[in-house]
Amino acid sequence: MKRIESAKNPKIKHIKRLHKRKQREKDNQFFIEGPHLVEEALHYEAAVQEVFLEEEFSVPSSWDFKDIPVTFVPEAVMKEMSATETPQGVAAVCNMTAVSNLTLEQGRYLFIDGIQDPGNLGTIIRTADAAGLTAVILGEGTVDLYNDKVLRSTQGSVFHLPIVRGDLEDWVEKCKKKNIPVFGTGIEMGTTHTAIEPQETFALLIGNEGSGVSEFLLAKSDQNLYIPIHGKAESLNAAVAAGILLYHLRG
Amino acid sequence: MKRIESAKNPKIKHIKRLHKRKQREKDNQFFIEGPHLVEEALHYEAAVQEVFLEEEFSVPSSWDFKDIPVTFVPEAVMKEMSATETPQGVAAVCNMTAVSNLTLEQGRYLFIDGIQDPGNLGTIIRTADAAGLTAVILGEGTVDLYNDKVLRSTQGSVFHLPIVRGDLEDWVEKCKKKNIPVFGTGIEMGTTHTAIEPQETFALLIGNEGSGVSEFLLAKSDQNLYIPIHGKAESLNAAVAAGILLYHLRG
Repeated sequence: MKRIESAKNPKIKHIKRLHKRKQREKDNQFFIEGPHLVEEALHYEAAVQEVFLEEEFSVPSSWDFKDIPVTFVPEAVMKEMSATETPQGVAAVCNMTAVSNLTLEQGRYLFIDGIQDPGNLGTIIRTADAAGLTAVILGEGTVDLYNDKVLRSTQGSVFHLPIVRGDLEDWVEKCKKKNIPVFGTGIEMGTTHTAIEPQETFALLIGNEGSGVSEFLLAKSDQNLYIPIHGKAESLNAAVAAGILLYHLRG
Repeated sequence: MKRIESAKNPKIKHIKRLHKRKQREKDNQFFIEGPHLVEEALHYEAAVQEVFLEEEFSVPSSWDFKDIPVTFVPEAVMKEMSATETPQGVAAVCNMTAVSNLTLEQGRYLFIDGIQDPGNLGTIIRTADAAGLTAVILGEGTVDLYNDKVLRSTQGSVFHLPIVRGDLEDWVEKCKKKNIPVFGTGIEMGTTHTAIEPQETFALLIGNEGSGVSEFLLAKSDQNLYIPIHGKAESLNAAVAAGILLYHLRG
């Protein structure tokens, strides 16, 4: 087993830089922490490059590191690497795996147009996973998938289904060619979501927390849906709205 | 107009203590901040005791302070009072209004059994408001409604519908006497939520993020519902699950 004793070790310094999006994109790597995320990464064969453990961390017997290098670090070094106040004794560096060759089939898709809050994006991905979606496409202006708060909020779902960045206009066009209905979402115009029957195949467009789905995408949608507000709230949380719509459309 | 110049003013010191649950309960008061929450409190005639403004804050013309005292404070004092990193120039102290005389009618209720995360509780209350519920009952072990993160996450819904603390066992009994069906929620046992028709009147029990609804409450429910997981996620976020169930049951 390897061991790193100092936070000044170049590898630790590199990991700290992975908390910035620019560095992640340069290196095509991201950092995860906590037993649940690391377990999911190992189990779903994400491209884990290296695992870091505190001596005191007791590794569950179900974990299989295969050929992945494991390095021990003292608590102080783990704290230095971590983005959280209370690190949980285990972390890992993963490669971003390219799913750039994702092809659109008859399936169920979520297109995300500019979700900004990391917790919302993570929770939406977790919800899309639970609803059994085929893939999630992240449009421009959406918070980075590999932001540590996004990753934590996915509760591991980041490793469960294909999630790719893309030009949503292109994806809507692709849907049209394959006769996959595209549903926009908005507060004011459109159809109550319950007026739509569950669909075998669809793409649902979810928009930014404040401004919603871009107008030019709404104009290209087959139908725009809204969730009726029966009380005095102005709107629903974006992840809650995604859950209601995905579970309704899925049937 | 009154003015407070120093963070050492006894009133400011008192407000800082309102960030603690114990003090809130002793004084029967709570603190809100930011233009949206203050606007909602004024508009829905919550018992606002005093409003605090920075000189630079431009008060929207739609706001009506009526007889409520308004006090100016410098930015540094606002920062001292605030629970956030970036205060937004306006805050208020409100009295907790007793709705202890809430009587159960034929309506739609949410019973919350031990939700711990402040953001979850606030988002669930916002969702209950949007779904047009009659009232929300907070059972023992649920995070304090007047926690500042809960209040922020409600986005003002805290002022839109009755929300009371109560003994959920009592409330379930009351429902039985009035023939209001009580739906428990769980992951393993019960009926898929879509097998249940929308209901004119109901009470939905939502449980703790980790351990779910208490067994003794589940045993007293008329039916236990679960949302099917079609993918690889272990569960849904509590607020997302509440949204899916409330919008389904409401129809």
